[in-house]
Parts: sequence; structure tokens; C-alpha cells
Amino acid sequence: MAAKEKQILCVGLVCLDIINVVDKFPVEDTDTRCLSQRWQRGGNASNSCTVLSLLGAPCGFMGSLAPGRVSDFITDDFQTRGVNISNIVWQHLGVTPCACCLVNITNGSRTVMLSDMNLANVTPEDFKKVDFSQYKWIHWEGRNATEQVAMIQQVEEYNANVPSEQRITISVEIEKTREELYQLFGHGDVVFVSKDIARHFGFNSASKAVKGLYSRVKPGAYLICAWAEKGADAMGPDGVFHSNAFPPKKLVDTLGAGDTFNAAVIFELFNGKSIQEALTFGCQIAGKKCGIEGYDGIV
Amino acid sequence: MAAKEKQILCVGLVCLDIINVVDKFPVEDTDTRCLSQRWQRGGNASNSCTVLSLLGAPCGFMGSLAPGRVSDFITDDFQTRGVNISNIVWQHLGVTPCACCLVNITNGSRTVMLSDMNLANVTPEDFKKVDFSQYKWIHWEGRNATEQVAMIQQVEEYNANVPSEQRITISVEIEKTREELYQLFGHGDVVFVSKDIARHFGFNSASKAVKGLYSRVKPGAYLICAWAEKGADAMGPDGVFHSNAFPPKKLVDTLGAGDTFNAAVIFELFNGKSIQEALTFGCQIAGKKCGIEGYDGIV
Repeated sequence: MAAKEKQILCVGLVCLDIINVVDKFPVEDTDTRCLSQRWQRGGNASNSCTVLSLLGAPCGFMGSLAPGRVSDFITDDFQTRGVNISNIVWQHLGVTPCACCLVNITNGSRTVMLSDMNLANVTPEDFKKVDFSQYKWIHWEGRNATEQVAMIQQVEEYNANVPSEQRITISVEIEKTREELYQLFGHGDVVFVSKDIARHFGFNSASKAVKGLYSRVKPGAYLICAWAEKGADAMGPDGVFHSNAFPPKKLVDTLGAGDTFNAAVIFELFNGKSIQEALTFGCQIAGKKCGIEGYDGIV
Repeated sequence: MAAKEKQILCVGLVCLDIINVVDKFPVEDTDTRCLSQRWQRGGNASNSCTVLSLLGAPCGFMGSLAPGRVSDFITDDFQTRGVNISNIVWQHLGVTPCACCLVNITNGSRTVMLSDMNLANVTPEDFKKVDFSQYKWIHWEGRNATEQVAMIQQVEEYNANVPSEQRITISVEIEKTREELYQLFGHGDVVFVSKDIARHFGFNSASKAVKGLYSRVKPGAYLICAWAEKGADAMGPDGVFHSNAFPPKKLVDTLGAGDTFNAAVIFELFNGKSIQEALTFGCQIAGKKCGIEGYDGIV
């Protein structure tokens, strides 16, 4: 029971998403009146916190922010969602990133234009300030991977010195096809790999990807790959697993669907469910998310 | 001399422009990292105030805002530019509009996605609070045209009761092809009509447009039409006028080029210059604007 009161910490990006809902993708050099526009806290790790919180898991976010109006919006929103932000790192240089997103309600597509990133990432030095005893699970969105490996090693060291029931599970997400990120494969108990990366390595299905990339993960780890309307596959020491997708009647907004999947899988495993249960639940919740705008209503 | 100390008031839209600079127009359902992103105060009348202020004219803005972080950004920026905002109308319903803009530095194109407008426009009732004695020129960006005509009538009434040197010159901009706006043709001493409207009425050059639409303006008025790289034409009681464009070496950012042209023309006429001088100056400053990001450096 005590273990369940511990939190899940997600380390990664938070940004402001300005979401423009349109019914057709704009033509260059024209003016479009959006159907609606909303400001939403975004970023993979930040979105996963939103979903974990909606699912009822105690969770916190760790990432960088620059003081200002954008970060005021973001911290207000985290607090409204009940996400712990005591580990946010305030940077004195750079600006909080902002993404202009186009969501096309006719086909559910999401097109993202992210600002240049001039805000420093969280460092292993920052990470030393985290009170590990509060966490049961720490998830990293792969970004500054070399430094993130150094953070993960701090957790491994902590794990080596506490009773097994107090150990922290480590998960990582490898989404972008950047060479530096691939070192993260070897450092998670649970590793999420994207369709983009699977394809980059020449695998044209989630099933082939988890089998083909499994040699990169550490012994005993689960490798998980979601593939949109094809569902998701996992491979672990106990074999391979698959869940079909649960597509909504109509695709409305796929922005953050991957972050929703990750959060729902983590939520199930955090609560002691099996990998098959987690995979199925991940697909269910991500499917529900694609049928609604934003996150309210995924549960 | 006293007349020159009076201000120019621009009535119309102010919004937040989030400007994403890219080197190619994004493909639907992809992620783009922008070359740069900046927040800029936008809206036609608001942009014209920026340019008037950079040119050294005393000016003020009148339009609606909703209190909040976006309007804080906007009012701070107006004040930095020295634009008088005492006539801003604070609305209790709706949100301050925000536009996500894509500026493609490869070809200078600007693609605008404006939020739905749920903020009320300035009304004739609001306009009654304006102290006309402070102004030498009032410019309207055509929006709620019927109500704007009622505002213009207030100025005409004022003009009828003051000595001629205290009269206020009235200019209007008719940009969008909306039937309601066309009544504004008959209500300006100076009328700016867009290329879009000219084409809508079947005119394929600025010269044809000003001649073909001149019967719609009131006796003695100037009708002005700018046509991008083709320059601009005007027609008045004293004949027709043309200026070539002054294109920059490289198109960098055409966002607000029309608002810049309008402001530069108004600035010259406000300072007693001829329509030919005003037209040429308008093309020069607008051309300069297209060669730089934003407005700093147009003078």
C-alpha cells in the first residue's frame, strides 16, 4: 500500500501548445479563420502527466521553464491538474518553448510547428536534488540522452541500496530518429520506441520492430511500440504481446495520442497489471483520446 | 504647428501574432522546428500604429481587448512603441484574438490562422467617449461597418462645428471581400481598397480598380489601391497617380506590409504632403518592411 502512495515522475519537455482547429489544412499565403483555438500545456512528458493525473495516479513533472507569462500559464495548468511541479528547473536564459499546432478535424491530423529550443535541458546536477524516496516510477522523454543516462545511473545506484519494494522502475521514450537517443534503449525497464524509429531501422510493423530491436534493451526489460490504427506490440522476457487499436468513431484530435498511450501503459504497470493488460489499456485510452479534443473525457 | 501636435487615431483590430519563421511551408501531419518564433502585436490598425509611431507621428489605437495575459503582452508592446491606448475598450466577454502566422523566408509568404473572433467590436457608444479635439486624423480598419459608419458620422458632425483647420481627416481601409464593408467606400476622405476586393469586382490592376471603383467614394476623396510588386495607384479629384514598388533585394516577411503602406501614406498626407508623395513613400516603406522581419528598421 505504501508503495502506491509514491509518485510517478516524468522528465522531459513542457511547452505551450496553441492549438488551431481547422476543417482543412491551410494553403500557403492565405488567411484562415480557425474553427476554434485553444491554449494547452504540451510536451510529451507534460502530456503524459496530464493523462496520469486524469487516470488518478499521483505524478510529478520535471523539466525546464523560463519565468514569464507562458510559464505562468503552464504552471497554473499543472496545478489545476494536480501535477506536482516541485522539481521544475527554472532557467535564466532562453524562453519557454511554444508550439503552434494545427488539428484538422476532417482527418484528425496534427501538424506541429515548434519554436527553436534555446532553453537548457534538465542536467544530472539538477536531478541530484530529486528526493528519490517519493517515487515508485521515473519516466524519461528522450532528449539530452547522454545526460539522461547519467540521471538514470543515479536511480540505479539508489535502487541498489534500498529494499526491492522501494526500487524505482525506469522507463524511457525514444521517439525522434536521432542517433544520440539510441543509447537509451539499454537503460529502461520499460522502453517505448516510436513508429518513426522502427521505420528508420527498416521495420514496417510494431511486431517486427519489437523483435528486431529487442537485443538493444537490457535483460528483463519490456520494449513497446505503438503503431497508430494497427495497435501496439510489446516484447519482454516472457514473450511477445499485441493489442489491437480501439479507434474512435471519428478521428478528432491525435495531438498527444502517443503521450496518452505511454501514460496509460505506465499507469497499468505502476498498479501491478500485466504487460498485456497495460498494452490493451494503453490502446483503449489512446483511442478514446483521438476521438475528443484535448484530454478531458479520456477516462 | 498646433495641428501637427494632434494625433492620428487608428480604430480596428489588435491581436497577438505568434510568428513562426520557416524555410519551407509545412506538410500536413508532420513536426517542424521553426527557424525562429516571435510574439508580435498584430492586427491591421494596430500594425499601422506601430509604423506611424516608428515614422514619428503621435498616434493612438482604439479597439477591444479582454483582460488577461495576452492583453498584458499587447498593452506592454503598445506602450513600448509610444502608442496611446487610452481609448482601448475592455470587454468582459470573449478572449483577445490570437493568430498563428507562418512566414516562409524562402519566398516571403505569410500564412495566417486567426482564432475565431468572440470579442465584441468597438461600438458607436464607445466611440462617443473619444475626445475628438485631440485628433487630426482618424483611420478605420473596416470591420463592423454599419457601426463604423455611425462613428464616422459623429466625426462629420464634429467637423461641421469646428473651424476648418481643426477638422479631422477620415480614412477607411476596405480589405476583406464582405458586402457589409462596401458601404465604407462612401465615408472616407481617403479610402484604401485591397487587391482582393479589386479582383472581386473584376479589376486586374490597381489602376483599373481605382478608376472603376471611384464612383463609390464621396466627392473630393482619394481612393488608393496597392498591388504588391506592381506598386500602388490612387485616384482623386485632381487625377490619377501611380508609384512603382520598391521591392527589397530579398522578400523576408510580408506580414503587415499592407498595414505599413497605409500608415506611410497617412503619415505623408497628415504632414501635408501630396498624394503622389504619399503614394511613393507608402511603396518605399512597405518595400523596406518586406525585406526585414517585423517593423524595426523600416525608417
